[in-house]
Amino acid sequence: MPSESAERILEAATRLFGERGYPSTSMRDIGEAVGLLAGSLYSHISSKEAVLLQIIETGLDRYLGALLPIVESDQPADERLRAAVKAHVELVASHVEESLVALHQWKFLGGENRQRIEAKRHAGSAAFARVLAECIESGVFKPVPSPDITISGILGTLNWVPEWYSPKGPATPEEIGEQLADLLLGGLLASPPADDGPKPRPKANSSKSR
Amino acid sequence: MPSESAERILEAATRLFGERGYPSTSMRDIGEAVGLLAGSLYSHISSKEAVLLQIIETGLDRYLGALLPIVESDQPADERLRAAVKAHVELVASHVEESLVALHQWKFLGGENRQRIEAKRHAGSAAFARVLAECIESGVFKPVPSPDITISGILGTLNWVPEWYSPKGPATPEEIGEQLADLLLGGLLASPPADDGPKPRPKANSSKSR
Repeated sequence: MPSESAERILEAATRLFGERGYPSTSMRDIGEAVGLLAGSLYSHISSKEAVLLQIIETGLDRYLGALLPIVESDQPADERLRAAVKAHVELVASHVEESLVALHQWKFLGGENRQRIEAKRHAGSAAFARVLAECIESGVFKPVPSPDITISGILGTLNWVPEWYSPKGPATPEEIGEQLADLLLGGLLASPPADDGPKPRPKANSSKSR
Repeated sequence: MPSESAERILEAATRLFGERGYPSTSMRDIGEAVGLLAGSLYSHISSKEAVLLQIIETGLDRYLGALLPIVESDQPADERLRAAVKAHVELVASHVEESLVALHQWKFLGGENRQRIEAKRHAGSAAFARVLAECIESGVFKPVPSPDITISGILGTLNWVPEWYSPKGPATPEEIGEQLADLLLGGLLASPPADDGPKPRPKANSSKSR
């Protein structure tokens, strides 16, 4: 369990890495933000990279801890995908700064640290890919030319949430998760596209001019 | 028209901003990358922020130049949305480094520069929002609780492409654009979700164990 100082250091580093980026945040910047000299800082943390690793790994562990039980449950596959989408949105919305660091600053980790984080990132997308494959195999979802592209498309919608979500906005994370799950599962079209021939095109139900 | 040196400076700066972030890239770094002393650099560009502005604005102008004619064409609204999705994917895939800088480093612009870029970013999402509204009004698309959330969801899928797209990958930008448009317009489900009662759930068409 991290000490109170260690927690304050992680919070300050998350904010600074998010605002300026990892490369242009120094240990001195982090120390100043929490009122510690660099010397005292090193009694809590071993290096700037160790701080970045801990921020990202804490977030990913929390994420996988929520995601994997959903994906491995005995619910129908499409309901697991819906629940996974909603859990993803709710987690990134409740940890916006940390999510932005985890999603964009991991590339500054080197060697083993980077491999460790890449393995955990992969575990998350592999969990989504597994549910997608089951949904397609059972016929609940349409087949797709490339499941990888579909997974990247889904994760794009979800990983973009911390770029625009604000707790001051009108919608709760639950409402956003529900609406994005509806978009991804059901699409925009009122009627599914026909395999051949022209799409059904209902008449405009409004005469408002624009 | 930028001189050959100015073009090389923009290319090098795009790469460096993408790799290290804008705050930790110096004019000296840019000069070294193109073999110019900082003094000569200033005969081509006025400041580091001017370089960032030019990179982002060039990308956004190219993007709006492709997007707006599609959105304003007289095609049916859902076909304009499909074409806009594909154009977005093809543009970011053909300018990955520049797109990452435009999408993530604009926040380092200050004052008027930032307002100018925010206005152009807004013009892009407003164009998508206009087509979405027309599609919903005509009944081709389902109504949604919050069009803003749907637009952010769509743009998330599209803006995430430069995070994973590789020209060495198996799919072309055209194929990716087509598949992501199918995902966003048609959704994952083989049958549209019923308003009430249980969803149709076809039997598994394979007995493969997993």
